[in-house]
Amino acid sequence: MRPKIYLFGDSITEASFADGGWGASLAHHFSRRVDFLVRGYSGYNTRWALKVLDKVFPPEKEVTDVSPVAVTVFFGANDACLPDRSCAFQHVPIDEYKNNLSSIVFSLKKRWPGTNIILITPPPIDEDARLLHPYVEDPSGLSERTNEAAGAYAKACVAIAGQCGIQVVDLWTKMQQFPDWKNAYLSDGLHLTQGGNKIVFEEVIQKLGEVGLSLENLPVDLPRLMEEIDPNDPLKAFKD
Amino acid sequence: MRPKIYLFGDSITEASFADGGWGASLAHHFSRRVDFLVRGYSGYNTRWALKVLDKVFPPEKEVTDVSPVAVTVFFGANDACLPDRSCAFQHVPIDEYKNNLSSIVFSLKKRWPGTNIILITPPPIDEDARLLHPYVEDPSGLSERTNEAAGAYAKACVAIAGQCGIQVVDLWTKMQQFPDWKNAYLSDGLHLTQGGNKIVFEEVIQKLGEVGLSLENLPVDLPRLMEEIDPNDPLKAFKD
Repeated sequence: MRPKIYLFGDSITEASFADGGWGASLAHHFSRRVDFLVRGYSGYNTRWALKVLDKVFPPEKEVTDVSPVAVTVFFGANDACLPDRSCAFQHVPIDEYKNNLSSIVFSLKKRWPGTNIILITPPPIDEDARLLHPYVEDPSGLSERTNEAAGAYAKACVAIAGQCGIQVVDLWTKMQQFPDWKNAYLSDGLHLTQGGNKIVFEEVIQKLGEVGLSLENLPVDLPRLMEEIDPNDPLKAFKD
Repeated sequence: MRPKIYLFGDSITEASFADGGWGASLAHHFSRRVDFLVRGYSGYNTRWALKVLDKVFPPEKEVTDVSPVAVTVFFGANDACLPDRSCAFQHVPIDEYKNNLSSIVFSLKKRWPGTNIILITPPPIDEDARLLHPYVEDPSGLSERTNEAAGAYAKACVAIAGQCGIQVVDLWTKMQQFPDWKNAYLSDGLHLTQGGNKIVFEEVIQKLGEVGLSLENLPVDLPRLMEEIDPNDPLKAFKD
């Protein structure tokens, strides 16, 4: 059985198989080694994620199905919507966000004790770009998200990872290390460009590698053309 | 349970999650509707595919696992290697190719009677480009594949689909309807450019649509932000 990895999150996960998307890049990188299954739900915050958790990962699968080797949990961009702006209905207070994230991790760990859970913080926000691409225009003329709020949720996410003893990609901090992050990594001040997708891809690869989930360690499914199939006796590779 | 589709084939399937790849594009197109699982094996012909079939799709899964709604079977590019050139060890005579393809279809149909099997013919070959990108240079100075041979295997593939009463994408014919097919669709005279990937993606989408596997017909996993979640009472969408 080939190992599998779930990608659980909001629109940044749902869109991760678009051209140059971080999910497709992971699937390609681990081709013949790992199956990647997308469980991305556009607009979702941790409150809604918690409500649907048992539908996303049905409990009855415990019995018949094999545990995933890893799950990425990538929420916070919607929780961090400001409570008094146009996307207030997606907002989740930061203390509830922390509790929800803990509950999601706890539930996944209970279901799959050996599975590596990797939290990913929300990305930074380019407020000017958000104003050019609003879902709903705010009467105040201000953006529905701020980078400061996203940063507070990112910090909370890192804290929860520490409390739970699991891995975390601090995307908010990582992206802002590059001076031109707003243009290089964000397409609409929130979602990712191909460059932004590449950062997520590289960070997740690194976290997976730290727990032994790397090209070097994971077996390749079936004999490889150049390495294991002898041109003089190809069928030998397929005996038993 | 979200429906799933397997992509079974050679390197053109194995690479289908690279940037702009047809597999990733399918996964993105059917996001929140269908899981796509890649079972591509670089260099494989139908003889080897038949040998590994029970490992790729383990029989014991019949009991516990849900049938895929479709499987693409995309072999022939390697079978069609010429028997007297540098990739002769991958060559499979055309009659055996037909038998092997039938056996693969029969085996999948036996396992999953309700599953839609879609055959895909090998793509056309640009012999000049192959000479610039050989795996192993042939002493004759000729390419290891010809478009004529690929065409014969494509025709055989279409015939088998007819005999088995299943769908087929005649990629060899489809691609050559465009005058600049060699540059537009092939990167090394055999593998696909982004344009070539787009053709495969569109053709597979069409075949899936013909059997009701379309965005219109397939349910979306969990309530959608704009359509089903009421900003004034978001949690209503998550009751029961």
